[in-house]
Amino acid sequence: MDYSNFLGFWTEIKLVDIIEFIGTFAFAISGIRLASAKKIDWFGALVVGFVTAIGGGTVRDLLIGVTPFWMQSIVYLFATILAMGIVIYFKKYLVHLNNTFFWFDSIGLGLFVVVGAEKTMAMGFDPWVVIAMGTITGIMGGVIRDILINEIPIVFTQELYAVACIIGAGLFCILSSYNVPLNVNEVATAVTVFVVRFVANRFGIKLPVLKGEKDD
Amino acid sequence: MDYSNFLGFWTEIKLVDIIEFIGTFAFAISGIRLASAKKIDWFGALVVGFVTAIGGGTVRDLLIGVTPFWMQSIVYLFATILAMGIVIYFKKYLVHLNNTFFWFDSIGLGLFVVVGAEKTMAMGFDPWVVIAMGTITGIMGGVIRDILINEIPIVFTQELYAVACIIGAGLFCILSSYNVPLNVNEVATAVTVFVVRFVANRFGIKLPVLKGEKDD
Amino acid sequence: MDYSNFLGFWTEIKLVDIIEFIGTFAFAISGIRLASAKKIDWFGALVVGFVTAIGGGTVRDLLIGVTPFWMQSIVYLFATILAMGIVIYFKKYLVHLNNTFFWFDSIGLGLFVVVGAEKTMAMGFDPWVVIAMGTITGIMGGVIRDILINEIPIVFTQELYAVACIIGAGLFCILSSYNVPLNVNEVATAVTVFVVRFVANRFGIKLPVLKGEKDD
Repeated sequence: MDYSNFLGFWTEIKLVDIIEFIGTFAFAISGIRLASAKKIDWFGALVVGFVTAIGGGTVRDLLIGVTPFWMQSIVYLFATILAMGIVIYFKKYLVHLNNTFFWFDSIGLGLFVVVGAEKTMAMGFDPWVVIAMGTITGIMGGVIRDILINEIPIVFTQELYAVACIIGAGLFCILSSYNVPLNVNEVATAVTVFVVRFVANRFGIKLPVLKGEKDD
Repeated sequence: MDYSNFLGFWTEIKLVDIIEFIGTFAFAISGIRLASAKKIDWFGALVVGFVTAIGGGTVRDLLIGVTPFWMQSIVYLFATILAMGIVIYFKKYLVHLNNTFFWFDSIGLGLFVVVGAEKTMAMGFDPWVVIAMGTITGIMGGVIRDILINEIPIVFTQELYAVACIIGAGLFCILSSYNVPLNVNEVATAVTVFVVRFVANRFGIKLPVLKGEKDD
Repeated sequence: MDYSNFLGFWTEIKLVDIIEFIGTFAFAISGIRLASAKKIDWFGALVVGFVTAIGGGTVRDLLIGVTPFWMQSIVYLFATILAMGIVIYFKKYLVHLNNTFFWFDSIGLGLFVVVGAEKTMAMGFDPWVVIAMGTITGIMGGVIRDILINEIPIVFTQELYAVACIIGAGLFCILSSYNVPLNVNEVATAVTVFVVRFVANRFGIKLPVLKGEKDD
């Protein structure tokens, strides 16, 4: 058994790691809070929180054929356990922090899209697969969360959540094709995802609902 | 980035490609129509349609350990977008086309079973795994669709839908063991799936329902 | 086509194979019985039973990147078909056998945790991944079963079901690090899982429910 990776993430911490930790934490919080409305126990809430945080990247990694990222560092599990503690001890105050969480969640979303797009492009997939994987990284955690708590995925009804991912990942592909430096591209992509989501939320912009065949 | 595959599917189109396009299109239509009863937005409907069309093959490819087929050609995404356009612009007329869609859907089912069985056999798996993968290719898209729209999978209650897949894939294995030429085998398998489903539908043949322990 | 594996599991039967068969059988029974409350047909019940039995190991194998175990021996499918026959022909008597099934199910759970932890450790993953995979092997079959029958996973509300897996797999890692012989470790782990679950069930020990933000 090799314990060396157990704390390996401390050896070199980059800015992107800190932002990713915050994004994971914010996604886990959203999963745990939604789970708490369903009367499930602490273990269930922890699982739902963890799956919300790592589900998108896991589906992406399975599809592109690599070992899921969270199995290579315990930091994502730590972020979820921290989120769990926060929700348990401060739950009465969380309601007033919805705006704060929206910011965290949107920053996390932007970063998740960057990570997903970058990882997929590095494996040589076509641009439209890169866009698909960037979007899957951003939204699939929430989709699995909603399946687990027995609801229709809210990403199918929310303000431009997925569209923000698609636009961001599309921009990432375009900038890459023009050989824009990677770190500039990363920032531009994450900011774009954030801004699209922020603007859509602020002005209540939504995609049209697909009406049923008997609706009118 | 390599855009060469982007339109690579035009370079050599075979009959099987056209039928597969039609099958994908028909499966996507079924997903989008069911989604439209749930008041989800256009993006959600597109995802549900796409997953219905490619879900079975994706689960099969993950299980047999290859890159999911739809990540190698954009044609499946195009078929879904086309299906989406049709549903949006012609939705009032679709109700009258149920019979037409049943034909498309059954043809698509037959072909999906052939593709799934053939691909699995080529990788050297046992015949019962070939039958399982042929069936999974045919039914899992619909199962995931029903999970996403929060319903019990209708394949568990419908007329011999899965049984048609099992019989077809079983025939494929038997004909293969007698060295029947592949193209004859493919047609025989697809036609068998179609006929079993068509006959079951026409005469309302269903599997018995498993009663609960307190039902009588 | 190679039929040699078709009955290959008869060539050398070990005690662990018999226990694993019993565990698979017990898990399949639980899936089929729960399915029977939902008015689904025989095929649907068979699928739900099979998925309950093999779902945990399948998710584990996909995550650690190997071919799912059940595709390499037909014995798991046979165990499910046997379970199906038992439920159909003896369903009126099953209600009185709840205690018996609880024993089978708990023994199966213990063995599944051992198999999952051992297989993951052999691939060189970190201890916390070993614990995660032991737990996933034990619980994910039931989670997928509950998703298929459109319920919130009962593992999120039940007596220390998952906690028993975590404690057992954790013990497995500790004993391994002290070089305890594998067969001693296997028995100790399986017995621990069984005892924790048995005691929790007998005394009604549960994890606290995570209350919602407006609950008090």
